[in-house]
Amino acid sequence: MLRTKLQSIANAFRDIVTLAYRRVDLQADIDRSSAELERLAQYSDVPAPAVKRVLFTEPDLAARKYLIGLFSNAGLKVRQDAVGNIFARWEGADSSLPPVATGSHTDAIPYSGKYDGTVGVLGGLEAIRALRKAGVKPRRSIELIMFTSEEPTRFAYGCLGSRLLSGQLKPERAAQLKDEQGETLEAARISAGCAGSLADVQLKQGAYSQFVELHIEQGPLLEQAGIPIGAVTAISAPAALRVRYQGPGGHAGGVYMADRHDPLLAASQLALEVEAAAKELGGQETVGTVGVLDVHPRAVNSIPRDVLLEIDVRDMDGPRRDRVLDRIRQSADRFGAERRVSATVEEINADPPVTCDERIIGAIEQAAAEARHKCQRMISRAYHDTTFMSLIAPVSMIFIPCRNGVSHHPDEYASPEAIKAGVEVLAGTLAKLAE
Amino acid sequence: MLRTKLQSIANAFRDIVTLAYRRVDLQADIDRSSAELERLAQYSDVPAPAVKRVLFTEPDLAARKYLIGLFSNAGLKVRQDAVGNIFARWEGADSSLPPVATGSHTDAIPYSGKYDGTVGVLGGLEAIRALRKAGVKPRRSIELIMFTSEEPTRFAYGCLGSRLLSGQLKPERAAQLKDEQGETLEAARISAGCAGSLADVQLKQGAYSQFVELHIEQGPLLEQAGIPIGAVTAISAPAALRVRYQGPGGHAGGVYMADRHDPLLAASQLALEVEAAAKELGGQETVGTVGVLDVHPRAVNSIPRDVLLEIDVRDMDGPRRDRVLDRIRQSADRFGAERRVSATVEEINADPPVTCDERIIGAIEQAAAEARHKCQRMISRAYHDTTFMSLIAPVSMIFIPCRNGVSHHPDEYASPEAIKAGVEVLAGTLAKLAE
Repeated sequence: MLRTKLQSIANAFRDIVTLAYRRVDLQADIDRSSAELERLAQYSDVPAPAVKRVLFTEPDLAARKYLIGLFSNAGLKVRQDAVGNIFARWEGADSSLPPVATGSHTDAIPYSGKYDGTVGVLGGLEAIRALRKAGVKPRRSIELIMFTSEEPTRFAYGCLGSRLLSGQLKPERAAQLKDEQGETLEAARISAGCAGSLADVQLKQGAYSQFVELHIEQGPLLEQAGIPIGAVTAISAPAALRVRYQGPGGHAGGVYMADRHDPLLAASQLALEVEAAAKELGGQETVGTVGVLDVHPRAVNSIPRDVLLEIDVRDMDGPRRDRVLDRIRQSADRFGAERRVSATVEEINADPPVTCDERIIGAIEQAAAEARHKCQRMISRAYHDTTFMSLIAPVSMIFIPCRNGVSHHPDEYASPEAIKAGVEVLAGTLAKLAE
Repeated sequence: MLRTKLQSIANAFRDIVTLAYRRVDLQADIDRSSAELERLAQYSDVPAPAVKRVLFTEPDLAARKYLIGLFSNAGLKVRQDAVGNIFARWEGADSSLPPVATGSHTDAIPYSGKYDGTVGVLGGLEAIRALRKAGVKPRRSIELIMFTSEEPTRFAYGCLGSRLLSGQLKPERAAQLKDEQGETLEAARISAGCAGSLADVQLKQGAYSQFVELHIEQGPLLEQAGIPIGAVTAISAPAALRVRYQGPGGHAGGVYMADRHDPLLAASQLALEVEAAAKELGGQETVGTVGVLDVHPRAVNSIPRDVLLEIDVRDMDGPRRDRVLDRIRQSADRFGAERRVSATVEEINADPPVTCDERIIGAIEQAAAEARHKCQRMISRAYHDTTFMSLIAPVSMIFIPCRNGVSHHPDEYASPEAIKAGVEVLAGTLAKLAE
């Protein structure tokens, strides 16, 4: 009883302090942040407005250098771990306490946009600047994290950095992951100048008191509702399969239809089956996508002989997602057998859904209210580093609307006003969590 | 009547001369030819045993230099036209007569084999050498042609060289063809050092008295029948379509299934429809293939937004093939409309079937009989430069078996004995036609 009372007094006191922050003007400099987002978008392997920034390629390395400069100039203490996760720390009054962390990623799939991930990194930086400018002196340190390779582009594995950080991915396994050129992650990260051992990347449970990530919604709901802030209560469970069909090939003119064993036709059946399985076995939150389908040898007059598919399935309901996956696996084998092409089915990942921390959600809602922004609770159907950070700390996410819900596309867009709102709510949230 | 009589005497005389050739030992040096085939296979952009030699790339240019050297060393007079067709001429006794021509191509699709096309070029060379060694003095000149880009790899257009030679493709249109990097054929051929104007490539009707091409069968029939020589009576009618589907894309986790407009699913339906149309509307000789299916942006967590298919349809029956093409076109539009993705359907080519010349077929059969090789008449379901040479001269082809009918694959194989038989029958045929 006494403890509850004390807690309640503490909460009331915190609210007064929080309100004081507002009075000292918790303002994001959105012009600076927008300019930084534009600059970051220029580190890209494809012509603007599209962006492509793949792990440890030249644009990725240049972007990292640029970010480290920004973090240092903001007075943050920067370190990088062996897989290239970058940590920028603002020391709190009590450096013995586990810090509060925020952050996101800056890698970008081919022909994507400027905001996915980057808003959480540059917005996190701007939130810290706003807190400093407002004279806030947090008790806990605040760490801004740029996670390595949230996108699965290079090693077919999303959230490489946060998986290793959280211990979900074992360093021995990670080291041996290979890209399409056969280069291992171990070789790639050493070439990229990441010192130390992958074995030292994992952080212990409780290394952070909380983690909160600012991100564009990548869906249309906030925009449609006219609400600027989403407080994320759960993240859907993502899984990915890789299916390979192989047949004898042959000249397109030289083999009768009846004699063919065409792996592309098995793959086409499977692509349609992914859609059918998600629709028939799942609910509204169940989605299945074939995002990669490679044909070899890829010539108009050649029957394909090697076809690779990568399939993404997500749901808020883990067991229901697994039923969809099972049907896809079984169908993949059946189509191969029926067409007498060899079929191999490999699970790339199958991660559990995440439930977010009620205390962080509350802090987001409170920060939004103080900044006079409407806020709604929502779930995330996209995959984030927060998924894995949940293994070592309580987590939540702050969503902001993006135009037409478009993401992973050059048309991806979040307005400066939307980003400003997100940054200020993140700043308010961090202030509360670091208190 | 007198004319017929004289013709018959001339024929009888020709037969005696022909038999004389045999007596003076019409022998191909298969060791030399095999070594040249191996050497040619080394000009490739992919690791052996696979071959990739795309028009005017480094391996193609190096292979051309190698071939020109071989032709010159064999005492042939070499010229190259503005699109890179190479002509090696053995002057006949009466240089005022139109020459007899033979030849094939040496370009190779990605991950193909050593024999497709190359056997007709190096085998043609070896046939000429055998004739010279045997002391044959042809009345007509004999020209060996290496045709530019029989494969549609770079400019999506097969038989570029023979289409231009025969006037089937207009030089203005050819000049503007673009590769995937946007480079025009005109720019590419000039970079490759092809002098002159594309307008001067076309040869007049009757420029050659006959054309005969030696080629591997690219199908299993000769091997299954245990017959070493095929005399080609007709070439099936090839056509190709390019279909593009485009949709809004989006994050694989961010868009409900019901809200999707996924171009890959329309493409998958169409790939299956190509198979169904060829099987249901066609006969045994009708084949339909999707050899190219490109997905953009090609990321496991991204809904595709741009999918390109290239579709090949062939038949011996032109109108029946066109009915298959029509159904594919209509279905392509319907799938696009049903999924609300944009669909564009473009015809790359639709060429008529070729009927071969009875006199050349007879010469092949006679040459085979003299060389004591069994010979069967057959049709070609694969596409060849002979298709277009038929527009300016009587044509036929000599087929030799290839192992398991495999072609456009690193396993493509024709035995030295099979090639030797083909070269000797080609030599005998050329001798007859040049008399």
